[in-house]
Amino acid sequence: MAEPEVCIYEVGPRDGLQNEPDALPTTAKLELIDRLARAGLRRIEVTSFVSPEWIPQLADGDALCAALQERPGTRYSALVPNARGYERFRAARVLSMAAVFISVSETHNRKNVNRSVAEHLERLRSVAERCRADGVPLRAYVSTAFGCVYEGAVAATRVAKLARELLDLGAAEISLGDTVGIGHPSGVRDVLEAVAGEVPLKRIALHLHDTYGRGLANLQAGYEAGVRVFDASLGGLGGCPYAPGAAGNVATEDVVSLFETAGVATGVDLEALVSASHWLEGTVLGRALPSRVYRARLGARARKARSGG
Amino acid sequence: MAEPEVCIYEVGPRDGLQNEPDALPTTAKLELIDRLARAGLRRIEVTSFVSPEWIPQLADGDALCAALQERPGTRYSALVPNARGYERFRAARVLSMAAVFISVSETHNRKNVNRSVAEHLERLRSVAERCRADGVPLRAYVSTAFGCVYEGAVAATRVAKLARELLDLGAAEISLGDTVGIGHPSGVRDVLEAVAGEVPLKRIALHLHDTYGRGLANLQAGYEAGVRVFDASLGGLGGCPYAPGAAGNVATEDVVSLFETAGVATGVDLEALVSASHWLEGTVLGRALPSRVYRARLGARARKARSGG
Repeated sequence: MAEPEVCIYEVGPRDGLQNEPDALPTTAKLELIDRLARAGLRRIEVTSFVSPEWIPQLADGDALCAALQERPGTRYSALVPNARGYERFRAARVLSMAAVFISVSETHNRKNVNRSVAEHLERLRSVAERCRADGVPLRAYVSTAFGCVYEGAVAATRVAKLARELLDLGAAEISLGDTVGIGHPSGVRDVLEAVAGEVPLKRIALHLHDTYGRGLANLQAGYEAGVRVFDASLGGLGGCPYAPGAAGNVATEDVVSLFETAGVATGVDLEALVSASHWLEGTVLGRALPSRVYRARLGARARKARSGG
Repeated sequence: MAEPEVCIYEVGPRDGLQNEPDALPTTAKLELIDRLARAGLRRIEVTSFVSPEWIPQLADGDALCAALQERPGTRYSALVPNARGYERFRAARVLSMAAVFISVSETHNRKNVNRSVAEHLERLRSVAERCRADGVPLRAYVSTAFGCVYEGAVAATRVAKLARELLDLGAAEISLGDTVGIGHPSGVRDVLEAVAGEVPLKRIALHLHDTYGRGLANLQAGYEAGVRVFDASLGGLGGCPYAPGAAGNVATEDVVSLFETAGVATGVDLEALVSASHWLEGTVLGRALPSRVYRARLGARARKARSGG
């Protein structure tokens, strides 16, 4: 397999599962992560050390990490919302990257963590300092980077300023999120142009949602602007649970298929992803995953089976 | 509403319905077309005058056209596969544009019409001559313009050559089709660059499928290259019937939402489309439509209703 030209950062076990209605058994999560790693995904965000009261779906983070198998070449990360979360992160020795989050939108940030953006940035400083002291690389998620349901359009200069502040705080990677999927390609280009003036694009990842079907259009705009790290979720896991069939994170299958078709190597085995989604959907989840590529490949497999091929 | 900057050519009643497992009652089709026109769609392909044995879903084309209401500002068109189909087209006085189809791929063309591309082009000449004599504008669909399931990659120069031949035949508009959704943005750009050397891009439309989730990424590439006419199907109607949840034509809602969000006026009322899909899905179709925007808007409506908003 060709040397990957882009990196797909798998968020299904964390961002995907935290948006599913029911918690999965820890054993199912372990199999999911194992299947993802075997499919060739080299970076997997496995859980969040948030309070179990807030996100019961990820309450088993400590047990999960204790049971997680180390794999050469695969890096596991976890979301660390605060100093208490960082203690749990440190105890989980299998993890090699911590992630924090903050919104560009004041309203979204306040609804999320009940603090202003500036106050929240100060809180993140303590986690960032612990990471630096321990030699742990830090990933920072920037929510609402391409628009906000509460505030509407978000100025590109504000995203660039916050990205710069996170870089100064010590973030090794900054993942710009289209939290509700309302971004569009020219908006993505505008934001990346502003951000590139403050932060090298090799430090930038894109975390796109496919809510309105333009996840890959936005991803393509980001790729053409120079971004090479893209967050994705197996099968589109985590699609909006209160809107049946609605999509959340761009699906890993859809991202891999787009790149590979265009001749851009991902290092990921698409058929292994499809098999993982099929296992997850049928054995664990009990509902249809929204990935377009997954559904089309499943249809193709069924036709092949019927024709005896 | 702002003057439209792009034209959406609605293919749901023809391309969508011909790929649904069951035929809809003519009255339901009439209501569908009425809803589409009232939502602001100015060009609607309503049926195909192919043999009822081949496509029973569209066997009622003559009766449908006889009952179809004329609307100032709305142009109805129909697919006309041959001279016999043209007689039926002429009898349906409500129609103002005829459409023919041909593949770039020899294998696909042969499987479709059992003739070589050159032989089929000669057959189309008789329809084109009748159109010219009657002053009827002709639309030509070019299938497999961005790749073929049988032949794989299709050379951009072959697409350009065929587009030129269709222009010389008298086609007023040439719709380049990504028949199975395997195109990708850089491929779309390559094809359009080659085609633009032979045919003015104002004569070109794009007929994209969302099978692999990149319909809008390809559409965006086409828009940036200068194309302004895009085929779409309400709700994504006509998604692959043997693969539940798989997508076919790009959904009209998804196209309208992408353009309007980016500030490009379409002249189409998105909420009216969502209501039309909801009616179609619940009252007529009995299966879930794949449009991302439709599903997300439906979820938003349900939440609003629950919160009493």
